[in-house]
Amino acid sequence: MQAYNTNDPKLRSFIEVPSGHPFPIQNLPYGVFKPNANAPERVGVAIGDQVLDLSVLDGAGYFAGTPLEGQGVFAQPRLNAFMALGKTAWTAARQIISQALDSESPKLRDDVALRQKALYSISDVTMMLPAAIGDYTDFYASREHATNVGTMFRGRDNALMPNWLHLPVGYHGRASSIVTSGTPIKRPSGQTKADTADAPSFGPCRLLDFELEMGLFIGPGNELGQAVSVDEAHDHLFGMVLVNDWSARDIQKWEYQPLGPFLAKNFATSISPWVVTMEALEPFRVPAVAQDPEPLPYLKASYPSTTYDIDLQVQIRSSGMDGWQTICRSNYRHLYWTAEQFVAHHSVTGCNLRPGDLLASGTISGPTPDSYGSLLELAWRGEKPIELTDGSQRKFLQDGDQVRLTAACASDHYTIGFAPVEGSITPADPVS
Amino acid sequence: MQAYNTNDPKLRSFIEVPSGHPFPIQNLPYGVFKPNANAPERVGVAIGDQVLDLSVLDGAGYFAGTPLEGQGVFAQPRLNAFMALGKTAWTAARQIISQALDSESPKLRDDVALRQKALYSISDVTMMLPAAIGDYTDFYASREHATNVGTMFRGRDNALMPNWLHLPVGYHGRASSIVTSGTPIKRPSGQTKADTADAPSFGPCRLLDFELEMGLFIGPGNELGQAVSVDEAHDHLFGMVLVNDWSARDIQKWEYQPLGPFLAKNFATSISPWVVTMEALEPFRVPAVAQDPEPLPYLKASYPSTTYDIDLQVQIRSSGMDGWQTICRSNYRHLYWTAEQFVAHHSVTGCNLRPGDLLASGTISGPTPDSYGSLLELAWRGEKPIELTDGSQRKFLQDGDQVRLTAACASDHYTIGFAPVEGSITPADPVS
Repeated sequence: MQAYNTNDPKLRSFIEVPSGHPFPIQNLPYGVFKPNANAPERVGVAIGDQVLDLSVLDGAGYFAGTPLEGQGVFAQPRLNAFMALGKTAWTAARQIISQALDSESPKLRDDVALRQKALYSISDVTMMLPAAIGDYTDFYASREHATNVGTMFRGRDNALMPNWLHLPVGYHGRASSIVTSGTPIKRPSGQTKADTADAPSFGPCRLLDFELEMGLFIGPGNELGQAVSVDEAHDHLFGMVLVNDWSARDIQKWEYQPLGPFLAKNFATSISPWVVTMEALEPFRVPAVAQDPEPLPYLKASYPSTTYDIDLQVQIRSSGMDGWQTICRSNYRHLYWTAEQFVAHHSVTGCNLRPGDLLASGTISGPTPDSYGSLLELAWRGEKPIELTDGSQRKFLQDGDQVRLTAACASDHYTIGFAPVEGSITPADPVS
Repeated sequence: MQAYNTNDPKLRSFIEVPSGHPFPIQNLPYGVFKPNANAPERVGVAIGDQVLDLSVLDGAGYFAGTPLEGQGVFAQPRLNAFMALGKTAWTAARQIISQALDSESPKLRDDVALRQKALYSISDVTMMLPAAIGDYTDFYASREHATNVGTMFRGRDNALMPNWLHLPVGYHGRASSIVTSGTPIKRPSGQTKADTADAPSFGPCRLLDFELEMGLFIGPGNELGQAVSVDEAHDHLFGMVLVNDWSARDIQKWEYQPLGPFLAKNFATSISPWVVTMEALEPFRVPAVAQDPEPLPYLKASYPSTTYDIDLQVQIRSSGMDGWQTICRSNYRHLYWTAEQFVAHHSVTGCNLRPGDLLASGTISGPTPDSYGSLLELAWRGEKPIELTDGSQRKFLQDGDQVRLTAACASDHYTIGFAPVEGSITPADPVS
């Protein structure tokens, strides 16, 4: 197969994609969809406002002669099998899909019958979870976020724990409660204790929050006992999604010592349905934050560390508002620890990562108060409430509030966008 | 189907089971096995020194007329589908299997051809993980263990956190690295920092430990957003296994704040292959530890709380020893929090539990120093080394050490035993 630059700004698809649209031919994010309620789930890519059904392309022999041939990975209800195939297969798939959609290439463009079978309007399909997530890990990689939260929970002097600058702190999250964008989020009830109370009490969470994060899907992964080096780590990253790690701050405060957050985080985590590949993000690599002190050798790549320039926003819309209000503008590049360091650290003891595992970044806060990635920080523990355009204030989320996270990489030529991740807060169950 | 007491002490199988054997007809633990390297995995029960292949019994129509009919749950490579069917199905299966193995019942006893197809010597088969574990949660439910570890890590005054007596503290563990008994455990390498050092360093774990725990497999589970009440919780418990939650204490100490243990625990967790059902444990119910302060209503059953009288042992065998040496005798009943409280607490925010999820108890330490469930406690952070019969001492595990956990419920009539969970320590990879 001839080499072909799938990131070439000059590429155009025969499917019309307006300028600035999140899904131009240079993006090609993968997702799992159902064309209708009774149809089996299958894998597609988004192109403009349409979805290309890759199981149809595979059935028509488009992937013959590649590592995908005969694997049927696109007819499966999750991306795990494709993720497991690794970089050679991913590159082959991207080249073939890009060429198939290229306006200069007649093969699919002029095959009216196949186009009719393979293309759906994105508004007509239902998006599913992109992967069966075996394990979900959440890091804590923003220095600004860790400092802000540490200051509030433990005071300024103990804000950043002594380990924080030496390793990417992380913990295991809950895989079962990861949901797709649009799933309503019921306000959780749980145990909390006011500082002034003698004993804890049970009731609906009062301090419900979002967290602006991004997640990385693992590709091939590693066998138990076999660490992945930081230099090899990039080949294990399949792609990225937006993550809203909903958090119950009052539950968290009471429960989290000494073993970390548990119920405060496990009632729901929302992710965006389209997985943007590392290949599509390649043109948006930028130098990573300089690390001082220098990390230990197992965390130090032999090449200059990079990260990605991805603009992030959090928007909110109360039931009284006509439209979205942006309350946070941040960027993925603010993170102190890199995705490759996540993988190297996570596996250094021999822990096995499996295809479809999700590694989230932790809340991505920037250096300025308008770039903080949670309400806890934006409203500074309620001391600086956010003014909404309907005249109300927010210290934490109220019932009926909708939250939307967005992400995009913009160049002079095109935009690589992520699907937004949205969720609305529904009332807690009555306490019986 | 006529009611039949599968726990009747007078029951005998036509398969000979010596007195005191862990697997009499009153036990019937479930497991997944391969008869040989090329055969597909399937579900069996252990009876004496044999394994009864339930997929063969199912194929012969033994489960007709029950909720299992046509489900094929025993021909599957994991127990999840059977676990999902719930208590009515579990009871039906147990009744049929018990009757099939009953020496008074001719149906299977006299069917030589079927017996030949369905029975294997337990020493000839390979045991697999009993379930695909979607999420693994580890609690911290032994007051003695929490107090001991808290004293060592944070001093006697802060040993038990203020929340500990009000809720079952727990955290999410790593599902991917759960392995069956017998899997060698490679000493992990990781980042640690000596109190006297200026900076952390990387190398093999020096303070490698076991943790004596038991795990509960979830049955039907709950939908996201729908809590399981403590009164309903028992119906969601399928059965129990032994768990060794291997721990790297030096890695743990440096990494665990503020989000809890991560790499210190995720390199391997060993479980026993045979799942002893709650029904088999029924005769060994005993009153639970009295809880003071009284728990909040969502943790308080409307009936007197019970737990199980299960004798536990930890044995060790160094490469220089001829046999096993028992270094800990504990009991499951020492736990402060009950299994039903684990389920009610875990799901109270709406977190969904799925069939095959594993809830482990945390280290089960008793009140006396010889009942502590970890080397950290037994050797009291190295201050009181354990004397081994080969003349050596142990503060923590050394390469070549084998560790075995055993569990059994003994009555005057029979023993309900768990398969032991074993693991041997192999050397760390050389640091490159």
